[in-house]
Amino acid sequence: MTEQDAPVLLDRTEGIATITLNRPKSLNALSEEMLAALQAVLDEIAADRGTRVVILRGAGNHFCAGHNLKEMTARRSDADGGKAYFNALFATCSKMMLSIVNLPQPVIAEVQGIATAAGCQLVATCDLAVASDTATFATSGVNIGLFCSTPMVALSRNISRKQAMEMLLLGEFQSATRAAEMGLINQVVSQAQLSAATRAMAAKIVSKAPVAVKIGKQAFYEQADMGLTEAYAYTGAAMAQNMLARDTERGIDAFIAKTPMPEWLDD
Amino acid sequence: MTEQDAPVLLDRTEGIATITLNRPKSLNALSEEMLAALQAVLDEIAADRGTRVVILRGAGNHFCAGHNLKEMTARRSDADGGKAYFNALFATCSKMMLSIVNLPQPVIAEVQGIATAAGCQLVATCDLAVASDTATFATSGVNIGLFCSTPMVALSRNISRKQAMEMLLLGEFQSATRAAEMGLINQVVSQAQLSAATRAMAAKIVSKAPVAVKIGKQAFYEQADMGLTEAYAYTGAAMAQNMLARDTERGIDAFIAKTPMPEWLDD
Amino acid sequence: MTEQDAPVLLDRTEGIATITLNRPKSLNALSEEMLAALQAVLDEIAADRGTRVVILRGAGNHFCAGHNLKEMTARRSDADGGKAYFNALFATCSKMMLSIVNLPQPVIAEVQGIATAAGCQLVATCDLAVASDTATFATSGVNIGLFCSTPMVALSRNISRKQAMEMLLLGEFQSATRAAEMGLINQVVSQAQLSAATRAMAAKIVSKAPVAVKIGKQAFYEQADMGLTEAYAYTGAAMAQNMLARDTERGIDAFIAKTPMPEWLDD
Repeated sequence: MTEQDAPVLLDRTEGIATITLNRPKSLNALSEEMLAALQAVLDEIAADRGTRVVILRGAGNHFCAGHNLKEMTARRSDADGGKAYFNALFATCSKMMLSIVNLPQPVIAEVQGIATAAGCQLVATCDLAVASDTATFATSGVNIGLFCSTPMVALSRNISRKQAMEMLLLGEFQSATRAAEMGLINQVVSQAQLSAATRAMAAKIVSKAPVAVKIGKQAFYEQADMGLTEAYAYTGAAMAQNMLARDTERGIDAFIAKTPMPEWLDD
Repeated sequence: MTEQDAPVLLDRTEGIATITLNRPKSLNALSEEMLAALQAVLDEIAADRGTRVVILRGAGNHFCAGHNLKEMTARRSDADGGKAYFNALFATCSKMMLSIVNLPQPVIAEVQGIATAAGCQLVATCDLAVASDTATFATSGVNIGLFCSTPMVALSRNISRKQAMEMLLLGEFQSATRAAEMGLINQVVSQAQLSAATRAMAAKIVSKAPVAVKIGKQAFYEQADMGLTEAYAYTGAAMAQNMLARDTERGIDAFIAKTPMPEWLDD
Repeated sequence: MTEQDAPVLLDRTEGIATITLNRPKSLNALSEEMLAALQAVLDEIAADRGTRVVILRGAGNHFCAGHNLKEMTARRSDADGGKAYFNALFATCSKMMLSIVNLPQPVIAEVQGIATAAGCQLVATCDLAVASDTATFATSGVNIGLFCSTPMVALSRNISRKQAMEMLLLGEFQSATRAAEMGLINQVVSQAQLSAATRAMAAKIVSKAPVAVKIGKQAFYEQADMGLTEAYAYTGAAMAQNMLARDTERGIDAFIAKTPMPEWLDD
């Protein structure tokens, strides 16, 4: 397998790591091969201090069509009918989704074409999302008898309950405009502008002090599952820690002095 | 009491159970009689494998105006001023609301006229909601000295905090259009189209594999109260279980073979 | 210091307590002096049965620009680099924010000019918010290396995750119109109408039975952190308690008799 044939491509330029799901013929389905490659790339990026932000996109005309149903169906011939395999597969997929949440760097989904089932979950799981105005979103598993139960974990933490239930129970495609109204994505642009718009958003994050972004992203998801009082105790400590970082001292000094922000040291 | 006079009417056609609150003169208020009848019907439907989806509507011109205040007031002459009665009444009502959440089948509110207080809670509690463009929504108890505290449990899990607080503290009527913008309801149609639009939505759900809908609805509310990691562990197991259902195997096989979905066996 | 020079002004008229952050030259920053004064005023109002609702506003052209960075920076010369001070400062600020949540009376933010960082958190923390159409909102700490981790506790409980992450990671200003669409504020009016519109909203709350408002506000935040079943048990008891209040009996009696609501006794 040449590098060009790899299931996931990784490009790193100017602090931006671009992950490209690279199985356009299968609509970048999350096969075992794809999940393993994506997990490996996420693990690599988590340890890469040079990467400040991640863009997640799909090769070809689509973002991602969810799980690889042929591969899954083949395991029905296992002695247990596939039970152990299916449990392991969804655990592997959930681990990958949680790796995006736990990644120190923010992840932006760059969405074109279809984002369905676990592909829609990927969009919901990313911290931010930019979509082409021709992109469409669905949790369509219900149409073939497999409810999008893991995708709904991410979906229902992005949009209102009634809207989530509508997508999950009816399985219909939602336009990018509707997805933005519901809060599933941040920005809708023309297909021609998609790459540039996503990169522009990424560049803004690259310009921020890495220590602040890292503390903040982690604290966001930690506090989200806490009660109010606990959340304040936790984030208060996070802000105090943030204040003690050298870059933060330099940034605040520049702000007070009304000079441009410094080059961040990130140490 | 003839069947036609019953507080709740139940019609079952083509997999759709239609529950009609049938006290139009009292704006279908949730009297003791109504709560008991509604609970009985929900319990009956929960055990009815032939019912795939439920429509909840009101007879006459309105959906539901909340609790029966005259009936409640009469109990102030109890030895304890009504305390035991009021506690039991709200427990009974909350049990009924939770029965909608826990019902295996999705429930669609078909809303016309007013949906106030516990009537608005009913809308918020249903999985989906379609409304006439003349319907109005309010948690108006605050206007007469009784804050809509139980309705807010459902309301605040449907719409944003500021919007929920506005409805709860000001007690004003919201239009159907505004309710849709806030995420309280899914669809707004003309009064003339209301019944057909709701039934069309119900028919879409009837067309799905029952096993998927049942697993999915239950998992939705279970995971909603969990932290992220726990939610993924739970829903991953739910999806693996879903994969092992015979209908799911048949549905995925049809999808891979690009043939129409089969008749579901639901066994 | 004359009363006019105080960091926080308090006016009480017709059941409405108006708190004015009164350091317009520093954009009403939450200095130690300001936090202490605001806490003292909130504590005073909490015990004041004559106050039915609170308006929180800023003197000059702006609402509040967050923490006082000069004051914080000065403490870097402490023996521990400011660590103890920063921890205490954020704890003090969080205590003040929680005092707004725990205040028996609803609090309405009246927002003009900028509401940034902890100033934006104040808006998110208030129960309701009215803004001038020229007001702007940002969690901009990330721009200078200090992620808005405590503000995000309130922000992320008001608006969707993707939108919260966008504000937190990009640090950009959001218009009042956008803030209303996201659910961060309730109403947008012209600058000329701001004070009157806020006061009109406050007057509506003054007209409600205090016992209902007090029970309801407390129950709202208590149940928000509970699972569904627990939330219903809690709020059912709250409603039964509410039913037993003398004002509630009088209000419901007037409603049944179709007479105007009585003057509330609040005892």
